[in-house]
Amino acid sequence: MRSFDEYKSLIEDNLTSFLPDPGEHARILRESMAYSLSIGGKRIRPVLLLASCDAAGGDVTAAIPYACAIEFIHTYSLIHDDLPAMDDDDMRRGKPSNHKVYGEAMAILAGDGLLSSAAELIAGQALPLKGDKDALYAHSRATFEILTRAGASGMIAGQTADVANEGNEATPGLVRFIEEHKTADLLTAPVRAGLMLAGASEDMIKDFTTYAYNLGIAFQILDDILDYEGSSELMGKTLGKDIEQDKCSYVNVHGMNAARSELGRLTDEAKSAISSYDNSAFFIELADKLENRNH
Amino acid sequence: MRSFDEYKSLIEDNLTSFLPDPGEHARILRESMAYSLSIGGKRIRPVLLLASCDAAGGDVTAAIPYACAIEFIHTYSLIHDDLPAMDDDDMRRGKPSNHKVYGEAMAILAGDGLLSSAAELIAGQALPLKGDKDALYAHSRATFEILTRAGASGMIAGQTADVANEGNEATPGLVRFIEEHKTADLLTAPVRAGLMLAGASEDMIKDFTTYAYNLGIAFQILDDILDYEGSSELMGKTLGKDIEQDKCSYVNVHGMNAARSELGRLTDEAKSAISSYDNSAFFIELADKLENRNH
Repeated sequence: MRSFDEYKSLIEDNLTSFLPDPGEHARILRESMAYSLSIGGKRIRPVLLLASCDAAGGDVTAAIPYACAIEFIHTYSLIHDDLPAMDDDDMRRGKPSNHKVYGEAMAILAGDGLLSSAAELIAGQALPLKGDKDALYAHSRATFEILTRAGASGMIAGQTADVANEGNEATPGLVRFIEEHKTADLLTAPVRAGLMLAGASEDMIKDFTTYAYNLGIAFQILDDILDYEGSSELMGKTLGKDIEQDKCSYVNVHGMNAARSELGRLTDEAKSAISSYDNSAFFIELADKLENRNH
Repeated sequence: MRSFDEYKSLIEDNLTSFLPDPGEHARILRESMAYSLSIGGKRIRPVLLLASCDAAGGDVTAAIPYACAIEFIHTYSLIHDDLPAMDDDDMRRGKPSNHKVYGEAMAILAGDGLLSSAAELIAGQALPLKGDKDALYAHSRATFEILTRAGASGMIAGQTADVANEGNEATPGLVRFIEEHKTADLLTAPVRAGLMLAGASEDMIKDFTTYAYNLGIAFQILDDILDYEGSSELMGKTLGKDIEQDKCSYVNVHGMNAARSELGRLTDEAKSAISSYDNSAFFIELADKLENRNH
């Protein structure tokens, strides 16, 4: 196993090189996609894919395109979420959001382009595997996993529930639905896909899914806490929007004390699901780091 | 070979059944995706996929999900193109466009959802093929073909060139770039993918690519002609927007007479590329029908 920063470097060294060339009359498309990919980010999702693959003895280098595709998907979702018709955020990661730099039309296209490029990048990994049916099958499972959890029964369903219920009274069930789909699905997908690529056992996939699910819900709850208590400067985006836009958040429904306590419980649950595995130290450390983040 | 309408029925009987279930708190997502899929359309792209697969002796039933995925992609592109920040069209196929019914935020998400659902639907076709390496390889090629031509070096590059050059002086090279990517790529993709699924020869794929490319450019030029001369009622959308938005169109650059003559030349080119094949009648008839359409 490598360190978080080593996995992160593998991602950042390759990320924009995987973008397609849109051709001479559409250079601005690549520029706007690369802008949002390059303004930083924790890279938790792609690191989780590489680390999970590594933990199960898989080929980390071969997993890099899948990891970058996950970051493409995460980045497209942020570009579209920041649009005026959605959360209307001018800042992202301390920089102007995509539509503030390139305009709304290009931001819509950059998001579409990143989602397409993710699917295309993953799909392209199958071609050199011709004849290797085990590798092709592992690829097929990982591909379906990523696209499904990012899609209309996954992340987009979560975002829909968030947007469609603004101003409605939030229920615990609705809040959990949003946490599960908007956030946890895109942490679960890379963990499961990394393990599938490595040919991990079904037991290991199940235990690490429990880890990623709890990590994901905890991640969203802490985001909700930081929307009240965090520093806009550290977070690199406008805070206080949950109240302003009357969002369904854990804090709004259950209160700050319950949110803090649920954060601790979920982090413990995540860690205990995988603590018996040889390579659990990396994942336990990550869960602790995320529980204590201030941005 | 079946008739155009028989292929079309195979698509329309299955189209919305392939949409994922977004779950109880996001039903509106499926509703908005289904709305835009169900308000009609010529279904040329998915029909081309089934017919091409059929022409090469492939399994038409197994190709239906790929064909529906192409229609998902076409539909998402229309939803996003109609947004106020893009072409700002209130009408599509004679009905209110998606954002007029569901609002801008949901229209963005419905487009994202349809693109994701397309990729997910195609990816899911690989799973039952476990162990069949020839079928998996044909699937992989067709998948990559569709996603690439729909993506940031394909259709989205064309849309970018169109949007980014509004108000700029159009050149013949720019107009051809837009025709190739915005339109022809999404007619070439289903033809090539259908043939790949059927295991067609490289020669056949090459000739049918020539057919589809010329058909696609002709299709866009006739769209530009109809923007001037067509009936808004028949077309089901606002016309005259090319002048109003100062768009790069063949008619604007070369004039109406040249456009009519290029339409005829491209249609002849398309037909002659495939006329020696056994099953060419279907494709010749389609090219003639498209050349003479008034909507």
